Amino acid sequence: MMNIAVAQSGGPTCAINASLVGVFREALKEKSIDAIFGSINGIEGMIENHLIDMKTMISSNGDMDLLRQTPSTVLGSCRYKLADWREDNKVYQQIVNTLVQREIGAFFYIGGNDSMDTVNKLSEYFAEKKLDIKVIGIPKTIDNDLCVTDHTPGFGSAAKYVAATLREITRDSTVYSIPSVTVVEIMGRHAGWLTASTAILHALGETAPHLVYVPEVKFSLEKFLKDVRRQMTKHKAVIIAVSEGIEVPEGVQSGVVDNFGHKYLSGIGKYLENVIRSEIGCKVRSIELNVMQRCSSHICSWTDITEAEAIGAAGVRCALSGETGMVMVFKRVCDMPYTVDIQHVDASEVANKEKFLPKGYINSAGNNITDHALDYFLPLIQGEPNLIMEMGVPKHFTLQESVLK
Amino acid sequence: MMNIAVAQSGGPTCAINASLVGVFREALKEKSIDAIFGSINGIEGMIENHLIDMKTMISSNGDMDLLRQTPSTVLGSCRYKLADWREDNKVYQQIVNTLVQREIGAFFYIGGNDSMDTVNKLSEYFAEKKLDIKVIGIPKTIDNDLCVTDHTPGFGSAAKYVAATLREITRDSTVYSIPSVTVVEIMGRHAGWLTASTAILHALGETAPHLVYVPEVKFSLEKFLKDVRRQMTKHKAVIIAVSEGIEVPEGVQSGVVDNFGHKYLSGIGKYLENVIRSEIGCKVRSIELNVMQRCSSHICSWTDITEAEAIGAAGVRCALSGETGMVMVFKRVCDMPYTVDIQHVDASEVANKEKFLPKGYINSAGNNITDHALDYFLPLIQGEPNLIMEMGVPKHFTLQESVLK
Repeated sequence: MMNIAVAQSGGPTCAINASLVGVFREALKEKSIDAIFGSINGIEGMIENHLIDMKTMISSNGDMDLLRQTPSTVLGSCRYKLADWREDNKVYQQIVNTLVQREIGAFFYIGGNDSMDTVNKLSEYFAEKKLDIKVIGIPKTIDNDLCVTDHTPGFGSAAKYVAATLREITRDSTVYSIPSVTVVEIMGRHAGWLTASTAILHALGETAPHLVYVPEVKFSLEKFLKDVRRQMTKHKAVIIAVSEGIEVPEGVQSGVVDNFGHKYLSGIGKYLENVIRSEIGCKVRSIELNVMQRCSSHICSWTDITEAEAIGAAGVRCALSGETGMVMVFKRVCDMPYTVDIQHVDASEVANKEKFLPKGYINSAGNNITDHALDYFLPLIQGEPNLIMEMGVPKHFTLQESVLK
Repeated sequence: MMNIAVAQSGGPTCAINASLVGVFREALKEKSIDAIFGSINGIEGMIENHLIDMKTMISSNGDMDLLRQTPSTVLGSCRYKLADWREDNKVYQQIVNTLVQREIGAFFYIGGNDSMDTVNKLSEYFAEKKLDIKVIGIPKTIDNDLCVTDHTPGFGSAAKYVAATLREITRDSTVYSIPSVTVVEIMGRHAGWLTASTAILHALGETAPHLVYVPEVKFSLEKFLKDVRRQMTKHKAVIIAVSEGIEVPEGVQSGVVDNFGHKYLSGIGKYLENVIRSEIGCKVRSIELNVMQRCSSHICSWTDITEAEAIGAAGVRCALSGETGMVMVFKRVCDMPYTVDIQHVDASEVANKEKFLPKGYINSAGNNITDHALDYFLPLIQGEPNLIMEMGVPKHFTLQESVLK
């Protein structure tokens, strides 16, 4: 018999609680597993021995149903990067103390890039110390920028929200008889996956987004203005999707003035809005989808949620089979009918690396997405949740504020 | 036999196409009505004789189902205020030319404040010219600031989106162990109805929104900072709902510096974010719900959509009964079970007037909403659409771009 622990880390998504349910449900099935601990605020809870008993926390199938439709991380999160254990093992020893005291034989870490680095380092340290404690990483991030895996849990729901919302924004922007430009800023500091996914609308007969800018393509303000002017000759309401992470002209930062004399006041969307207003002079609006793109679980992709649960469950089986230092990944078997296989790879193959949009997904002009990319994106956004409502609002599962403090 | 015409005006909502369906369906039933014309871009289409045959446009029940779940105005919109016909009747005569040429005996205008002014003026002009053409106003606005009517179509869907989204933002904001403040900026230039409706979450056991600021209460930056500091002693993640229209300190406008030395860079949310960052120094984020609050039909209130259709249909019956210069209104019969009656009032009672939050809905500190208001708000957000999807995204009904141009 052993106990296990699970933690959630990094930026919230709609699917990270579904992966927690996956770990929990699979562990319940195993007679060799006794207590299932949830670590509060990611690895911080392991360091500070701040764990809760998840069998008390989740007391019914109804609780699991609610958790699946609750965005963000019910156990809290952290942005904590472990130092190299060869240089400073103090924190590692604190984690070991928690693990040993609680008789924990396996630790599951649901997170992004940094969390997979933690999985890698912890498993190395335990091997060095000859501790038989398995460490398994369960991926998540709306950025979809993890290597090896076909895609990451959380991305499909974000892409579904962004596609549905961009379609609604397109309807909203098209009503007046005067020409207009709408710039929609989408998350993604280094990789343009989520921004690129808006091209899903092309498969639905929409001409929007008319322009798409991703960090993978070097951005030129002159070319941008030329692109916008060209689209304005074709469409009354031009809709532009832009990654927050596109390379802005040098010197364009908060309070700094660019070649055009514009200040980069807040996000790139607001900046481009100001550039268009003064250089083209048309009606223009910028929209930042902000945290809504990572927490709008009311329009999550059910494919994403069920996959997130499945990959959490697969993580438990992987640890029980004796593996450690592994990250669970999706391998796509087929686009249509969409089929994925869940496998595991060494965490070092995933940690601290980023996956960028393939060149073939970006058009030759570098300002839109090819139809070729749609076969990749479309399966990830299929299916809708059967939401449990509470007086007209989707219901959430939450811990008391005092538990999280 | 006569023909009729219908037009949509003002800012988009999720329910304005449902009212169009209501007018269309009810007119179809009437043997005395022949052609049903849709005017492109509101009253502009009537001036320019730019109408389309709605029986060709809507060819099936499926089309009506799609229209009901399509946000914004399928016929386009305008922001056009008619001059007083006593001073300049040129445009009035153009409208009359269209009406006479097309043998239109009744005109239905779906819109907000300005549109009800148009209804009033047109009906006066037709009476003066002894023209037997009925004019009926069908209300809509997410701002809910129309007089006489209990509420306006479009408001319930916006309130449902805002409540669900604020709940999701609350989950998103609560994950880290460090204190934070999130400022959510909500539409409403003069009246705080939509911002106040976020207090619905209190009925669901949420402590958020912890602070609510509406235009009906004079805003003080000093008191605001005091309020925020106080809430930070009680909650790790403080969530603030603020109307875009609150009175900012004098001189606080784009590029102008306030007493604190902060620039009012974009919306009030971003401004308050900057104030909190420099005065309190905690983690802070501002979120502008932007046009999503008026076009997110994927989470519309089904009560709102069905009422919007019903009030459109009632408008047709009102015209057929011989009335003109009237605006259709809801009279609430009962909160629970929720019951409304549809009546009509003279357009002059509604035009150019604004309805503000009752004093009893605002707490004595002027920084939150009373539970008393919840009986009013809650019935309006009930019920969900059974969405027609298209490859994972809600499907919309649209006219070709060339028709709208």
